[in-house]
Amino acid sequence: MKKAIFPGSFDPLTRGHMDIIKRACKLFDELIVVILNNSKKTSMFTVEERISFLQAATQDLDNVRVADYEGLTVEFARAVGACCMVRGVRSIKDYEYEMEIAAINQHIASEIETLILFANPQDSFVSSSAIKEMVAYGQSVEGLVSEEVYAALLKKC
Amino acid sequence: MKKAIFPGSFDPLTRGHMDIIKRACKLFDELIVVILNNSKKTSMFTVEERISFLQAATQDLDNVRVADYEGLTVEFARAVGACCMVRGVRSIKDYEYEMEIAAINQHIASEIETLILFANPQDSFVSSSAIKEMVAYGQSVEGLVSEEVYAALLKKC
Amino acid sequence: MKKAIFPGSFDPLTRGHMDIIKRACKLFDELIVVILNNSKKTSMFTVEERISFLQAATQDLDNVRVADYEGLTVEFARAVGACCMVRGVRSIKDYEYEMEIAAINQHIASEIETLILFANPQDSFVSSSAIKEMVAYGQSVEGLVSEEVYAALLKKC
Amino acid sequence: MKKAIFPGSFDPLTRGHMDIIKRACKLFDELIVVILNNSKKTSMFTVEERISFLQAATQDLDNVRVADYEGLTVEFARAVGACCMVRGVRSIKDYEYEMEIAAINQHIASEIETLILFANPQDSFVSSSAIKEMVAYGQSVEGLVSEEVYAALLKKC
Amino acid sequence: MKKAIFPGSFDPLTRGHMDIIKRACKLFDELIVVILNNSKKTSMFTVEERISFLQAATQDLDNVRVADYEGLTVEFARAVGACCMVRGVRSIKDYEYEMEIAAINQHIASEIETLILFANPQDSFVSSSAIKEMVAYGQSVEGLVSEEVYAALLKKC
Amino acid sequence: MKKAIFPGSFDPLTRGHMDIIKRACKLFDELIVVILNNSKKTSMFTVEERISFLQAATQDLDNVRVADYEGLTVEFARAVGACCMVRGVRSIKDYEYEMEIAAINQHIASEIETLILFANPQDSFVSSSAIKEMVAYGQSVEGLVSEEVYAALLKKC
Repeated sequence: MKKAIFPGSFDPLTRGHMDIIKRACKLFDELIVVILNNSKKTSMFTVEERISFLQAATQDLDNVRVADYEGLTVEFARAVGACCMVRGVRSIKDYEYEMEIAAINQHIASEIETLILFANPQDSFVSSSAIKEMVAYGQSVEGLVSEEVYAALLKKC
Repeated sequence: MKKAIFPGSFDPLTRGHMDIIKRACKLFDELIVVILNNSKKTSMFTVEERISFLQAATQDLDNVRVADYEGLTVEFARAVGACCMVRGVRSIKDYEYEMEIAAINQHIASEIETLILFANPQDSFVSSSAIKEMVAYGQSVEGLVSEEVYAALLKKC
Repeated sequence: MKKAIFPGSFDPLTRGHMDIIKRACKLFDELIVVILNNSKKTSMFTVEERISFLQAATQDLDNVRVADYEGLTVEFARAVGACCMVRGVRSIKDYEYEMEIAAINQHIASEIETLILFANPQDSFVSSSAIKEMVAYGQSVEGLVSEEVYAALLKKC
Repeated sequence: MKKAIFPGSFDPLTRGHMDIIKRACKLFDELIVVILNNSKKTSMFTVEERISFLQAATQDLDNVRVADYEGLTVEFARAVGACCMVRGVRSIKDYEYEMEIAAINQHIASEIETLILFANPQDSFVSSSAIKEMVAYGQSVEGLVSEEVYAALLKKC
Repeated sequence: MKKAIFPGSFDPLTRGHMDIIKRACKLFDELIVVILNNSKKTSMFTVEERISFLQAATQDLDNVRVADYEGLTVEFARAVGACCMVRGVRSIKDYEYEMEIAAINQHIASEIETLILFANPQDSFVSSSAIKEMVAYGQSVEGLVSEEVYAALLKKC
Repeated sequence: MKKAIFPGSFDPLTRGHMDIIKRACKLFDELIVVILNNSKKTSMFTVEERISFLQAATQDLDNVRVADYEGLTVEFARAVGACCMVRGVRSIKDYEYEMEIAAINQHIASEIETLILFANPQDSFVSSSAIKEMVAYGQSVEGLVSEEVYAALLKKC
């Protein structure tokens, strides 16, 4: 049985994340979406809120599981027996960042592979931070996040 | 059962190809390495020679199978029931090329995913064409190709 | 009155070209789409055919005119009194190419400006050459070119 | 009548900004240079000082107007009836940044176009922040900013 | 006699830095490795500690000298009579950064050249900050820094 | 005594080449500009003509010598006892090309270093092929090549 993880902050979950989840879960027997809980970074949503968004959005995807972890991503991958980490790339900047992180992870845990999926070109601008900024400026993000996430964003901003 | 394909010209097989094959075959139940036989392009080695190199080099990898195909890569992927195509990327130039091809393939066959693996940094210069050029200039390519391929290269050049 | 030109081969006209034409013509009083007729390069469609495709596709755009020219693009721009040339960019590769050409043109005719529009991300893979290759391999390009162009492509391939 | 805006911080105005202003104002009936007044960001010069620098530097350019705005750039563009926003690009890093912002703006206000001009290669290093750092280190920035701006910089540092 | 400098923070010295030092010192009569002491930036190691690491690591390289400087790098280069500054580049991001800094330095001191060496591909992920983060997360950095530096890192984290 | 080589086709010598030569020769005791004579490639000027252009242009640079070579660049570097090869880079495309070639050369002759100089931004578009194309289209290249080269170009085109 082949397991993969899809790590991220998901603060909050976007249309771009969901696209990667739906595509990646077809490639493996199980896909674990893992919220990296970095207590040093400020987040808009609590881990519990982010888990809730992800669970609601993935409930129809049978082989997708949601988890959270505080620590190194590769340690989580090892702990759950995953063979690889999936990452979406939207730009050259993303690509160079992922290449560097992948090389560090390869040094730490050479048995955990990093897999890159090209983000959907239509989602090239859909990042959690762009979403939060648009909402802060009173702009609509309809269609870029789920209705549930949108409602939660409006309460926070 | 999850199948992936690793398409290429493999003219000839290099250390860089083998690295991707060894890493990719751990991620899927079966990995089919497929030689794209483009009759319009001149190749140094025949399809039969290239199959022979690949079979020799992958004989210890139980879930790797070697094939050849003349036509569109996505059609082969569909025909064998693969969920994805694996590609190694060594540079920004490679990345942009793969992104363009992936977008075309996504248009043609949206159910076949393209997966990118970062090439080993040590293999960043190891391409089939660089190997052929080095041999043509009388330089050693020891360690960059198998002994069998090296011997065959020396006969052709 | 401000005139701009949109130069290209348009061999054949694609959805990506039309997107740039529709966006660019709103920015100027007149937009001249000019087919660069390079007699050294082999084209699939004659200049007459390419003019016909463009005229059909732009008939509802009142301030768009179609022309052809054999020679340097900046000379054409000068001859028609255009202040600038519009180019669409889909990738870093495109960007670097346009930057180099723009610098050469700036040397030759510093009064003619080069303007870059970002191609629609959904059209990042829609180039004339990709279209021709897809048709050659028997793939559908529906929606990527006009029906008229599609019919003409099928006759040529 | 076609209007364009050229938005920025202009903290302070540089030779690079002036090059874009002089080139862009030839392409439109009116060019509005707009200082984005982000009260969250610390600036070296007040909005009034920055307006003053811009007005002095553009007084001979008849169709250039100076304004300031606090809010989203596209909202300002809409409010003044501009068809597009002009941006200068000096590097791949700039290009990727502008592409992302343009995609966000396209989502918010699809009728406002983003136009890219290639910065003059000689100005590739001329940014407001580089200017401020050079002055802080006691280096000359003669020729990179106007005499008026230079004098003001020396007073602040 | 041709002198070059190799400027950096060296906080702490890594395998990547040592590779550049060993390669660069063969190209010049003297190579001065200079620690830029920026009192505004927080560093993990004191200047004295960083000098000590560099002196220990370069003791067998006869034409390498270690120094520290607070101020502009080009001023140090001038003061010691160096003809150039050597920099290692690991990625496109590094390349663009160095190009910008080199253009600024060329403006300030056109007689001081900037020379780029390609970092060893195997060191593409070996930065001082990556090393510090790996140690902070309890990961081994054996082989990426000297034993002396590793011991010092473990004491600090 | 430290020797460097500056290899290229120089078909013909441009302002960009001369900028690199003038800057590089200050860094080494001797700089050998070497014309790579690739009999497979068509050149506009004979090796003798290209030597003549280079000798005329470098006659005031005491430590610059002109040579030609048919074979691998690193073999020439070894034969003359050079410690390094100097290359000018104008763009990301150039950078990636040089990085690949440098990695191949490092494999063949690890003792020969590749040094990158950033091309003058004003010369970013000045390549031998751009020069030839401009002349072919009847455009002036005054200032981009020497008067002698310009006269020779006019005779060939």
